[in-house]
Amino acid sequence: MASVLLAVFVNGKICKDPNMVSANDFFFPGLNKPGNTSNAQGSKVTAVNVNQLAGLNTLGISLVRIDYAPYGLNPPHTHPRATEVLVVVEGTLFVGFVTSNPADPNDKNKLFTKTLYPGDVFVFPEGLTHFQFNVGKTDAFVFAGLSSQNPGIITIANAVFGSDPPINLDVLTKAFQVDANVIKYLQAPFM
Amino acid sequence: MASVLLAVFVNGKICKDPNMVSANDFFFPGLNKPGNTSNAQGSKVTAVNVNQLAGLNTLGISLVRIDYAPYGLNPPHTHPRATEVLVVVEGTLFVGFVTSNPADPNDKNKLFTKTLYPGDVFVFPEGLTHFQFNVGKTDAFVFAGLSSQNPGIITIANAVFGSDPPINLDVLTKAFQVDANVIKYLQAPFM
Amino acid sequence: MASVLLAVFVNGKICKDPNMVSANDFFFPGLNKPGNTSNAQGSKVTAVNVNQLAGLNTLGISLVRIDYAPYGLNPPHTHPRATEVLVVVEGTLFVGFVTSNPADPNDKNKLFTKTLYPGDVFVFPEGLTHFQFNVGKTDAFVFAGLSSQNPGIITIANAVFGSDPPINLDVLTKAFQVDANVIKYLQAPFM
Amino acid sequence: MASVLLAVFVNGKICKDPNMVSANDFFFPGLNKPGNTSNAQGSKVTAVNVNQLAGLNTLGISLVRIDYAPYGLNPPHTHPRATEVLVVVEGTLFVGFVTSNPADPNDKNKLFTKTLYPGDVFVFPEGLTHFQFNVGKTDAFVFAGLSSQNPGIITIANAVFGSDPPINLDVLTKAFQVDANVIKYLQAPFM
Amino acid sequence: MASVLLAVFVNGKICKDPNMVSANDFFFPGLNKPGNTSNAQGSKVTAVNVNQLAGLNTLGISLVRIDYAPYGLNPPHTHPRATEVLVVVEGTLFVGFVTSNPADPNDKNKLFTKTLYPGDVFVFPEGLTHFQFNVGKTDAFVFAGLSSQNPGIITIANAVFGSDPPINLDVLTKAFQVDANVIKYLQAPFM
Amino acid sequence: MASVLLAVFVNGKICKDPNMVSANDFFFPGLNKPGNTSNAQGSKVTAVNVNQLAGLNTLGISLVRIDYAPYGLNPPHTHPRATEVLVVVEGTLFVGFVTSNPADPNDKNKLFTKTLYPGDVFVFPEGLTHFQFNVGKTDAFVFAGLSSQNPGIITIANAVFGSDPPINLDVLTKAFQVDANVIKYLQAPFM
Repeated sequence: MASVLLAVFVNGKICKDPNMVSANDFFFPGLNKPGNTSNAQGSKVTAVNVNQLAGLNTLGISLVRIDYAPYGLNPPHTHPRATEVLVVVEGTLFVGFVTSNPADPNDKNKLFTKTLYPGDVFVFPEGLTHFQFNVGKTDAFVFAGLSSQNPGIITIANAVFGSDPPINLDVLTKAFQVDANVIKYLQAPFM
Repeated sequence: MASVLLAVFVNGKICKDPNMVSANDFFFPGLNKPGNTSNAQGSKVTAVNVNQLAGLNTLGISLVRIDYAPYGLNPPHTHPRATEVLVVVEGTLFVGFVTSNPADPNDKNKLFTKTLYPGDVFVFPEGLTHFQFNVGKTDAFVFAGLSSQNPGIITIANAVFGSDPPINLDVLTKAFQVDANVIKYLQAPFM
Repeated sequence: MASVLLAVFVNGKICKDPNMVSANDFFFPGLNKPGNTSNAQGSKVTAVNVNQLAGLNTLGISLVRIDYAPYGLNPPHTHPRATEVLVVVEGTLFVGFVTSNPADPNDKNKLFTKTLYPGDVFVFPEGLTHFQFNVGKTDAFVFAGLSSQNPGIITIANAVFGSDPPINLDVLTKAFQVDANVIKYLQAPFM
Repeated sequence: MASVLLAVFVNGKICKDPNMVSANDFFFPGLNKPGNTSNAQGSKVTAVNVNQLAGLNTLGISLVRIDYAPYGLNPPHTHPRATEVLVVVEGTLFVGFVTSNPADPNDKNKLFTKTLYPGDVFVFPEGLTHFQFNVGKTDAFVFAGLSSQNPGIITIANAVFGSDPPINLDVLTKAFQVDANVIKYLQAPFM
Repeated sequence: MASVLLAVFVNGKICKDPNMVSANDFFFPGLNKPGNTSNAQGSKVTAVNVNQLAGLNTLGISLVRIDYAPYGLNPPHTHPRATEVLVVVEGTLFVGFVTSNPADPNDKNKLFTKTLYPGDVFVFPEGLTHFQFNVGKTDAFVFAGLSSQNPGIITIANAVFGSDPPINLDVLTKAFQVDANVIKYLQAPFM
Repeated sequence: MASVLLAVFVNGKICKDPNMVSANDFFFPGLNKPGNTSNAQGSKVTAVNVNQLAGLNTLGISLVRIDYAPYGLNPPHTHPRATEVLVVVEGTLFVGFVTSNPADPNDKNKLFTKTLYPGDVFVFPEGLTHFQFNVGKTDAFVFAGLSSQNPGIITIANAVFGSDPPINLDVLTKAFQVDANVIKYLQAPFM
């Protein structure tokens, strides 16, 4: 809606004199470099959204690169404000998303999965829980577009078991129908 | 955008002759009746969205009533396509939401909580994980507006541990950094 | 679209340091208290929108409580930027909305009405003229969701006969096809 | 969002084989002819929206021509789904709009007015009550754009005093704080 | 979405004390005066968008007057953020738009054309290349609505052959499959 | 807005029984294969939008792979309904976009350019004219996200000089301020 250039220096976080706007306001380098997957999940999301690239302001789109070590996992998460469409560049990924609660409480949320190879495209619809898992023996990586300048990521384990402060033990034991020791065990990696 | 009446018989799932549209197409009864909270969580969401009330089609809003037995919980969940604004009618609820992943991976997702009493209003922003817990000694209930004709509900326990088919054990053990027995234990209530 | 938290301290009227945002930015109390209906209409709208609750900023929804004394009326009005979906909590209300002008000028705008009891839900589509009338012998009240952070209310009598300055007498006499004394009579309550 | 051509034959009311779409699907003639103002208000709105011009489907805009006899009035009305921006082609019009209810109930809705001459442009923001009155001695006419493919028109007198069936006398007498005879007098032109 | 009045003094480029807002913030004069068509194309677009008329802010619409000398041309151009709907006030125009690239590369982009006379309405869908050509012997002019407060105009000849700095010769010769002299010839009018 | 699954079988072009929806409705293979650049421009766009992948319906995003032979060009074009954000996978590209017409007609449309290497991200804002040119000695390719399920592509040379039927010679000679032979020469590659 707003003018593209206005976006940078009127609405955006970086406000400049229009005469000072340049190609660099629409540029971000470095997505050729693998993200550092030396972490517990063996995966790394490198985001290029309006926080990194001011020229995306008001334009409703952003990009990520995701790297996966062998057996690396981008664990179940949601994007609160975006659909994701991913293309595999290298590697073999087992991916899936879970639909929202069914109308009939006797039914279950459906899991849709697919094993993806280089060149495969997959859609994770807005707000749904999804994951990607490197089931190959080599590193893997993807690029993905997201339908928001600021899509957000909610890693479920972190949001549920690793928040600051933690969600109350009573809430979590009841939510997962387990005893408190299991919840404490699940919270331990974040302490 | 579309005409209100067109919504019912052109775009909607129920397509009628315009001359047949009546006040009943904009009406839904029964939210005075407490939902049945005789379940493991001790809570019940009764939804009035476009699936129940065709006149909401194209209009970007819907409503729910949520009931809570004493110690009842509306467990951590998200709405993939809506913000929720809730008003407590009866009872005392401990509520909270968790922000999305922080920019700095050394930081944690923040939990914002509040104890709510009758007449208190609280906002759960679009797509964020949230819960309500009845911390009073009596039944509680709320009404809430949601910013979509079809907001969806994703109960995290169900989507992550109770989908059909289940999410692979390898994915879940790695996601939660626990051993397989814990995951199986978490999946058990849904088997 | 924008980040939830950014909404509060970047785009919102209340701009804070992100580290200062708290649960209270998403909270508003007091809707358990009946509005004061000691006025000519015998009704009172208590609004909770972005002007009262900054955390609603960018989120496209708000809430109201409406109270009605016996025989109290929420007089014909429109919301210029929102659909309203209402649930009756207490009392018996006769409600209605009028469709927009028909294609054929020989036809009339249609009035759709319904008598609502506790638990009944009714939709007033965006921008249409509507009213609620307490036809019971006791106080009544409702909660309603509106599909805008700032929906606006236009009470027709006030906008047409009570504006400052008044709409010209010539305009009103011609609009309503009556003589000037009738218009002056209609304007009198607002003088 | 949707493809322009898809709009005509997939989403639109007129569904055609894409190979059959032609320039005529984007064309509507006749706005050079003055509307017939031989009616009580002395004005006539000739609308070109998606109901007349299928090619507007999904495109969020439409057009009207409005004619005014000397002393003719386009009486107070709202567009439930659109802002209007008008340009005077011929004549002298006294125009105005009324803001929505003020936050402070002791304040009044504000009336903003302007006398417009040929070439003058004026904005009537979405959903607000507005009117145009020919205060010149000759015929007048305008063109106006509206920000919806189907903006709707709600003529206040018709919606409030001329609906089918009529709004209850009790509602109207209370709304306007007058006795029933005045309301009956206001309803008479529509009987 | 935002409040109409807020638009002027909170979000808009002109920020005022709300008590200072007046009818003039929604007014722009002078579209009765023909634009100066003494230029190479023999046409002139006079725009009334949010840059000229602050009251349009957040409202998603704007207006233009376009004048054409005999044989005057509004040359092929696009609006990057708006659909245009035009009404001919005076003169005879040959107009057209070209659809986007077809799915089958052996097909061609379709040109839809129409000769328009006073009172004819024509739609140029969002982002498509279009033109208007005065094929009559007299001056012509139109009014048009555009579905954005800031629609933008991209005159193709200017954007492709007249930018500052010029697009590289290699790019243009390859794009148009001609030799460099032809491109230089096409760039000459802008040097 | 609409439910994800509804999108596939209610609103989409492919309407299925919900129980028949599967992961394949959200999948598209083959973007690992270079597009065939054996054409005059030496480039090939392989699109994955709602026409290829029904699961994108209502979700506001799509993807492309673009291949470039050495010296290959994705010639100046626009997307009528989308912003594009591109990441270079292989090769060296000289890219640019041109801003819309400036407010002051004495100013020129600005060209913003950048030479991109693998891993570089660049934004082409909605509707603006842009190009990519392979200035390296090897094949190049990129992936790009677009902010529409059906963004459209308008190759300027094709739309202006290669439409069916052709744009009138008078229009084009005047638009580009050249004589008819030059236009015929520009049209020749499309005949």
